[in-house]
Amino acid sequence: MNSFGRIFRVHIFGESHGVGAGITIDGCPPGTPMNEADFEPDMGRRRAGKKGTTPRVEADLPEFMSGVFNNCSTGAPLTIFFKNSNTRSGDYANLVAQPRPGHADYTGRIKYNGFNDYRGGGHFSARLTTGIVAAGVVAKKVLEGVTFEAKLIEAGGSTDIDAAIDKAVADHNSIGGIIECTIKGIPVGLGEPFWDSAESLLSHAMFAIPAVKGIEFGAGFQAARMTGMEHNDPIIDDKGTTSTNYAGGIVGGITNGNDIVFRLAIKPTSSIAKPQQTMNFETGKVEELVIKGRHDACVALRAPVIVEAMAAITMADLMLIENK
Amino acid sequence: MNSFGRIFRVHIFGESHGVGAGITIDGCPPGTPMNEADFEPDMGRRRAGKKGTTPRVEADLPEFMSGVFNNCSTGAPLTIFFKNSNTRSGDYANLVAQPRPGHADYTGRIKYNGFNDYRGGGHFSARLTTGIVAAGVVAKKVLEGVTFEAKLIEAGGSTDIDAAIDKAVADHNSIGGIIECTIKGIPVGLGEPFWDSAESLLSHAMFAIPAVKGIEFGAGFQAARMTGMEHNDPIIDDKGTTSTNYAGGIVGGITNGNDIVFRLAIKPTSSIAKPQQTMNFETGKVEELVIKGRHDACVALRAPVIVEAMAAITMADLMLIENK
Amino acid sequence: MNSFGRIFRVHIFGESHGVGAGITIDGCPPGTPMNEADFEPDMGRRRAGKKGTTPRVEADLPEFMSGVFNNCSTGAPLTIFFKNSNTRSGDYANLVAQPRPGHADYTGRIKYNGFNDYRGGGHFSARLTTGIVAAGVVAKKVLEGVTFEAKLIEAGGSTDIDAAIDKAVADHNSIGGIIECTIKGIPVGLGEPFWDSAESLLSHAMFAIPAVKGIEFGAGFQAARMTGMEHNDPIIDDKGTTSTNYAGGIVGGITNGNDIVFRLAIKPTSSIAKPQQTMNFETGKVEELVIKGRHDACVALRAPVIVEAMAAITMADLMLIENK
Amino acid sequence: MNSFGRIFRVHIFGESHGVGAGITIDGCPPGTPMNEADFEPDMGRRRAGKKGTTPRVEADLPEFMSGVFNNCSTGAPLTIFFKNSNTRSGDYANLVAQPRPGHADYTGRIKYNGFNDYRGGGHFSARLTTGIVAAGVVAKKVLEGVTFEAKLIEAGGSTDIDAAIDKAVADHNSIGGIIECTIKGIPVGLGEPFWDSAESLLSHAMFAIPAVKGIEFGAGFQAARMTGMEHNDPIIDDKGTTSTNYAGGIVGGITNGNDIVFRLAIKPTSSIAKPQQTMNFETGKVEELVIKGRHDACVALRAPVIVEAMAAITMADLMLIENK
Repeated sequence: MNSFGRIFRVHIFGESHGVGAGITIDGCPPGTPMNEADFEPDMGRRRAGKKGTTPRVEADLPEFMSGVFNNCSTGAPLTIFFKNSNTRSGDYANLVAQPRPGHADYTGRIKYNGFNDYRGGGHFSARLTTGIVAAGVVAKKVLEGVTFEAKLIEAGGSTDIDAAIDKAVADHNSIGGIIECTIKGIPVGLGEPFWDSAESLLSHAMFAIPAVKGIEFGAGFQAARMTGMEHNDPIIDDKGTTSTNYAGGIVGGITNGNDIVFRLAIKPTSSIAKPQQTMNFETGKVEELVIKGRHDACVALRAPVIVEAMAAITMADLMLIENK
Repeated sequence: MNSFGRIFRVHIFGESHGVGAGITIDGCPPGTPMNEADFEPDMGRRRAGKKGTTPRVEADLPEFMSGVFNNCSTGAPLTIFFKNSNTRSGDYANLVAQPRPGHADYTGRIKYNGFNDYRGGGHFSARLTTGIVAAGVVAKKVLEGVTFEAKLIEAGGSTDIDAAIDKAVADHNSIGGIIECTIKGIPVGLGEPFWDSAESLLSHAMFAIPAVKGIEFGAGFQAARMTGMEHNDPIIDDKGTTSTNYAGGIVGGITNGNDIVFRLAIKPTSSIAKPQQTMNFETGKVEELVIKGRHDACVALRAPVIVEAMAAITMADLMLIENK
Repeated sequence: MNSFGRIFRVHIFGESHGVGAGITIDGCPPGTPMNEADFEPDMGRRRAGKKGTTPRVEADLPEFMSGVFNNCSTGAPLTIFFKNSNTRSGDYANLVAQPRPGHADYTGRIKYNGFNDYRGGGHFSARLTTGIVAAGVVAKKVLEGVTFEAKLIEAGGSTDIDAAIDKAVADHNSIGGIIECTIKGIPVGLGEPFWDSAESLLSHAMFAIPAVKGIEFGAGFQAARMTGMEHNDPIIDDKGTTSTNYAGGIVGGITNGNDIVFRLAIKPTSSIAKPQQTMNFETGKVEELVIKGRHDACVALRAPVIVEAMAAITMADLMLIENK
Repeated sequence: MNSFGRIFRVHIFGESHGVGAGITIDGCPPGTPMNEADFEPDMGRRRAGKKGTTPRVEADLPEFMSGVFNNCSTGAPLTIFFKNSNTRSGDYANLVAQPRPGHADYTGRIKYNGFNDYRGGGHFSARLTTGIVAAGVVAKKVLEGVTFEAKLIEAGGSTDIDAAIDKAVADHNSIGGIIECTIKGIPVGLGEPFWDSAESLLSHAMFAIPAVKGIEFGAGFQAARMTGMEHNDPIIDDKGTTSTNYAGGIVGGITNGNDIVFRLAIKPTSSIAKPQQTMNFETGKVEELVIKGRHDACVALRAPVIVEAMAAITMADLMLIENK
C-alpha cells in the first residue's frame, strides 16, 4: 500500500500534472505547532532552481486540508496538499508509445493496464516528494532533541561536486551521487529483532525515494571486508557509547544510542537530453528517443532533504511506539 | 512487529536456548504439497558443520504444528516448529555483566529492561533463521516457475573464499562477505510506487537477516558513479527485455520482467575467540572479554539460503497480491 | 488508525468546519470509470434537506484530487475531497466549557488534550461521511453483480416512520431507528476464521458510523432465543442455498452464498433543542445547556446510504483479497 | 489475516484434531510474571465437563514455546500452545459428503478447495479458543486495575438458565443465550474516531468468537426506541462521570471513563443429536444427517471467559497504544 508506519503513519497521493500532491499523517501528537512558514526551509531545500536542477519551479505552499486548528495539530489526520500550477503536459504525449529508459513509464503501464496518468511520470513523479518533505517537517517537530543531517558526499564519482555537475550539464547527460545521513540523539532500544529492525524500516523508507539503488549502515559494504576484531565496536561507558561506530548505531536491529549513520546510492537522473535508442511499442522497433521537458542533471542534489524527511518519519514512528 | 507480508504473511517466534524456534505462515494457498522431506535440502544448506561454521549441529526436523493435513497445506495458518536439543546454556552466563561487542546483548537488555532471554542471543539468535528458511521453502513452492539463486561471491575481501576462511579460523578471528542473489521468472508489475516498492520490501526483509549491513540493486553503489546515458537500460523487445540490467530488474519500484539482482554486505561474525576489550557493567570498567561457546568464522557461508528464503517470502506475497 | 481494509483500503480525513472532508482509497483497480455525476445519486441520499434533517445543505460536489485520469481510476491512490462552504462556526463556541451529552466533545477534548477542532464536532462530525459515501460509490463500481440495499425499518420504536419523526420535531426532541441491510450476489468463501470473519469486518466498519450502537446478523439477538433445530439453516442444493437464512449469509465467519442480512441500532441524534442539565467545566457545576446550530431529528433517516457504503467498502476488500 | 491488534498483537493457529492449538502474542511488555498456574482459573472456566457441555475434556496445560524466561515475559513473541490429546477423529468422516448445518463444513470446503482439515471443525473449532483465553490471561495481567466480568444473563430465552439447559439436553436439542460483559477501570480517551472506534475494535474481536451473532453497547437496540432526551447521558462531575450509562462507556468511538457495557447474542450450538435434513453432496440429494461426536447443549455457558479474554486483548492493545 501507499502507507508507512504503525503509529506515526503516512499516506501519499497525487500526480505530477494533476491537481497536486499531498500526504496524510495519522498519529501526529495533538498540540504540535504547525504554521505554513515552518515548512519553507525544508521545502526550499527540495525545490528546483539551483544549478543542475530543472527550471520548473513550483511555489510549494503547503495547504493544511485537515488536522490543524489554531496553528496546532489536533490529533486528527493531518493532510497537507501542494497544488500544481506550473505544468506543461504536452511535453509527455510521445512517451506513451516509447517508454523512457530508467523511468516507470513501461512498468507503470503494464501494472495499471494503460490507465496510469503518464504525464510527467504521474504518481511516480518526484513531485510527490513535496508531501514526503512536509511529513518530514512534522516528524522533526515530534522528535525534539533529535537531529538529522543528510548531505551529498560524492557526485559522478567525484567529491568536487560542482565540477561534476557542470560537466554533466555540458554533456547533456546526468550523474548520480552518494548521500550520507547522520541521526543524532536517538535513545537505545528502538526497532525490533527481525522484520521491524531499525535497518529494515529505514531501508524500507529510503527505497521509496525515487532513484535510490543502494543503502549501507555504518561500515556497510566495507564491513564485508573487515574482520570481526576490526568491526566489533567495543562499549566504553555505561551509556553504551562505543569507541568506533562501524555498526552505524544499530545492533541486532535495535538502536544502540550512538549516531545512526547510513549512505545511499542515487542513480543518475533517467531523463537526459541526449538521444537514446529504445523500443517504440507503436512501431515495434527500437528507435531513437529524444526526451523533452525540464529535468535535473543530478537528482542527488535535491535528495538530502528528502532523505532526512524519510529518516524523521521512520524515527518518529519508532519513538512513538516506544513512548520515548 | 515480528510479522512481514500482507497476504503471504509470516510471524516468527522462539529462542536459541528455549524450547525451539518456529514460524507461522498466514495466507499459504490451500493444496500446496507439504512433506517434512521437502525441507531438508534448504535446511541442510543452512545447517552448521561445514568448515568455518559452528560445531553446534541441530537435526532441524520441521514439525508441522498446524495448517497441514494429508500432506498438503489447508489454507489455515501453517506453523512449523524446530525443537532445540543441542544447547549448552552455561556458556552464556557471563554475558549479562559484559555484553558482547557486535551482539544484541546490550541493546536487547535495555530494550527489554533486563528480562530478555540472554542465553545464546535468545530471540536474536541465528537459530531463528530455521523458521525463515522453512517459510522460504513454502514460498518457493507457491512460486512455480520462479527461481532463486544466492551465492557468496566474496569473503574477507577475497574471491578465494576457501583460503580466506582458513586464515580467519587460524587467526581466531572472523570475516564478512558479499552475497549476490538473482531471481528469475518474475513478471512485470510487482511492487508499488513509494513505500511498497519492490526494493523497499526486499530490503526490509533482507535487513531482518542478522549480520546484513548493506544492500544494492543492479548496479547499486556503482550507479552513483555512472552517467544517465550509461545507466539507463534500453528496452529492446515488446516484453520489456532490456539490453543491460543496471536497474536490477526494478524500475520505479515495480518489477520490469528482467532478472532481479541484488547484493548484500554481511558483516564478520561478532563472536570471535580473540579476547576483546569492552565495558563490564558490573565492575563499571572496560575489561577483557573472552567469548566461549561455538561460533562461525564466517556467517556469510550459511546465509545464501536464508537470503533466498527472504526473497521468496517477499515475492510470494507480491505475487499473491497481484494474483499472478 | 483512521484506515480500513487490506487491498481496497480507505483513509479518512477532514473536519466539519475546516477546509472540507475527504477520503483516500488505495487499491482501486485501474480502469474503473469515474465521473463526478456517478456520485450524485448516493450523495443525494446522504444529503440533508428532507423532513427531520438539518437545514444545513452542502452541494457535496466530489473533487478528484488524485488517482483519476481521462475519467477512469488510474490504480494510484484515489483521493476525493468535499469542500466545506456552508459553515457557521460561531454556533459552537460555548461547547468548550460545557460538552454536549452524547457527543464526543468531552472524550475528544481529553483524548487530544484540548487541541481538537471542536467546531461542529470537528473530525468527529457526520460531515465526514461524505467521504465514506463516496468510497462506497467506488466500491460498488468494483463489485459488479453485487447489490446493496439498506433501509430504515423502524424509527422511534414505530414502523410509521413519518409520524414518529413529526412527533420528534414537534417535541424538540430526537429519535433513533433500526436499519436493515441486505447484500445480494456475494460468492461463497469471503472472510476468515476468527479475527477477520466477515461479521468481524462488517461490524468493524459499521461501528465507525456515528450513532451506531448495535449490530446483529441474520436472526441476531433472536437467535439467542431459538433452539439449534430451529436456527440451523439446512442446505438444499449444490450451490449451498439454504432453506432458511437465520445465519444471515455467514457461517464460521465465511460467506455462504446466501444473502448477507444485518440490522443496526441507531441511537437518537445527540443534539436536541430541548435544554439539558450537564457539567460546565468552567463553573464546575451541573448547569442547563441549550444547543444551538442545525440538527437532524433522526440521523437514522440519512444513514442507510452510509451503511451501504460501509458494506460495499468491506465487501470490495474481501472480494479483491480472494480475486473473485 | 488471523491476527488482531496493533501493539499487543495476537496470532492464532491450530486445529481441533491436529497437534494442538496455540497463540502468539507480540508486544507483551517485558517483565510480566508468567506461570502455568496463572492460566488455570480462566482455562478452567472455559473447559468442558459442566452440565450441558461436551464430555470431551482436555487438560489444557499451557506450554510456553517462546517469550518466557525465568517466569517472566521477555518482550519477544510469546507463544502458548495446547496439545491435543483426547481426540476421536473417526467421528467426523461422514461430514465431508454432508456438511453440518450451522457449521463451517461447507463454507470451509469451498474456501479452501477441499483441503481444509475437516476433523472436528479443524481450524474453525472452538478448541482454538484455548489460545484466546490464554491471551486473555496475559492481557489481564497487562491491564492492572482494570476488571472484566462477563456472565450469561439469559439462555434459551429464559433467565432460569439451569432449567433451560436441562430441557435442551432432554430434547437432544441446543439453545443460545445472551452474555453481558462489563469492563471497569478504563480511562477516558481510548479508541479512535471512525474505523478504530472502541466499539469497532471490540465488535471485531467479539465476532471472532464462534457462535456470536449480535452485539450491542449500552442501551444498544433499545437506544433505537429512545428519544435523545432519554438517551443522552448527562455529565455530572469533572471526571466525566455520567448519571446514566446508555452509551455503554463509549462516546464518539472513544471511551468516556464510565463502565464499558455490552451484550452478545450467542446462537444455539449447531451440533445437535436430533436428526436434520440437509444436502448430501455425494448423492446430490437432501438426506437425513445424524451428527455423532460430543457437543455442548449451550455453548454460551462456556463463552463468558472467552468474551472477557477478547475484551482484555482489545483493551490491552488500546492501552498500550495510548501509553496509559
